[in-house]
Amino acid sequence: MFLKDFIHSVFSADKKLANSINNILGFYPGNVFLYQLAFKHKSASSETINGYKLSNERLEYLGDAVLSAVVADFLFKRFPYKNEGFLTEMRSRIVSRASLNKLSQKLGLDKLVNLVGDNRSVFRSVNGDAFEALIGAIYLDKGFNFTKKIIIKRIIQIHVDIDALQKNDFNYKSKLLEWGQKEKRAVEFVVSGESGDGFKKQYHIEARLDGGMVAKANDFSIKGAEQLAAEKAWLSLNID
Amino acid sequence: MFLKDFIHSVFSADKKLANSINNILGFYPGNVFLYQLAFKHKSASSETINGYKLSNERLEYLGDAVLSAVVADFLFKRFPYKNEGFLTEMRSRIVSRASLNKLSQKLGLDKLVNLVGDNRSVFRSVNGDAFEALIGAIYLDKGFNFTKKIIIKRIIQIHVDIDALQKNDFNYKSKLLEWGQKEKRAVEFVVSGESGDGFKKQYHIEARLDGGMVAKANDFSIKGAEQLAAEKAWLSLNID
Repeated sequence: MFLKDFIHSVFSADKKLANSINNILGFYPGNVFLYQLAFKHKSASSETINGYKLSNERLEYLGDAVLSAVVADFLFKRFPYKNEGFLTEMRSRIVSRASLNKLSQKLGLDKLVNLVGDNRSVFRSVNGDAFEALIGAIYLDKGFNFTKKIIIKRIIQIHVDIDALQKNDFNYKSKLLEWGQKEKRAVEFVVSGESGDGFKKQYHIEARLDGGMVAKANDFSIKGAEQLAAEKAWLSLNID
Repeated sequence: MFLKDFIHSVFSADKKLANSINNILGFYPGNVFLYQLAFKHKSASSETINGYKLSNERLEYLGDAVLSAVVADFLFKRFPYKNEGFLTEMRSRIVSRASLNKLSQKLGLDKLVNLVGDNRSVFRSVNGDAFEALIGAIYLDKGFNFTKKIIIKRIIQIHVDIDALQKNDFNYKSKLLEWGQKEKRAVEFVVSGESGDGFKKQYHIEARLDGGMVAKANDFSIKGAEQLAAEKAWLSLNID
């Protein structure tokens, strides 16, 4: 290939990526390299810099944090009279792996992954990861306020059904009990102790699986501690 | 008390708070109400609005997210060749409850808590909570970029020893094994399965306590999966 053709092919790939991002999110990238990197999965990368393997993982880490902050801000203002437990739960529904995978499908990010060329989709969650990495790239390229606007106006308000999310059942205790029934495992919640007096009194709850402790949590109410222990057990046991 | 005296006492309390924030962080608040709210612990609050009890918990939720994003950005740029595992671990050390409690002491936030008046320090972690709520207040009052500047220039660069944090041992497997020895509980890590082939091959590790599974994790290396399982078990078992 002549140098001229090589340069042309590189620039035309960049242009395609820039155009696609404009189609999907409504803006042209400043630094296209960041967006290319956002779609470079570790398994598809061979380049290293100072011993670090160039892939989208660092951008994913950054994008995850920026996305969390933007969604926190969005929910804070959208629900001015809800407490932090509700806000935390709603945020974790919006930024869950399953939700981000769905979002990246809705946005058509798989097309961008293909445009970058040397990617192979190894994991089921590659799209959710790429979504977060894309947020990281936008943040580095354009700053927080711009990224916030894109996330809220072009992603959440168009693709996320906040009312539906609010109605989902995220009762970890009942989910864990159902799972136990299905898998024929004994799931129990046991008060293992108390601490403090009066309004500072806390209950200690153990979630047990077949008689063995899987998780432990404290809260001011038994119900609250059961939910916390159930959630920990759920995550700890890696149930889907 | 005459209305005149009442107004004077309210304004002079506001002024004191505004001056103290300027002494500690180098800027004057725009909306002092946000900063008062940042130091209002749930247990000290009786006001409600639309059924929501006015306290610093919502600001804490927001501040936690903003702080995470700022620290993520700071570490991303400070360590350009470190992978996301390192960055995540460093961030969790900087924003850990213990670290935030220490930071709020170093900053002298306890004095601000007292200025707001009707607060009682009920929990050991009230300071770390108040610290996060303060970040939430700055964010709402002044925006992300200003908050980022304050966190990096006035807090991290002055009060956080990044090099020392880097040296701490956060090897969860060895921590869990030590804990087991101390508590006379049998801690084991067992390969419970494998999946995938070639470079996609993953190992499934179970962390077991007295023979019962406590946590489960997958990774491309046994060592990696053990660390993940150990970390999950550590959090799940609520060990200090």
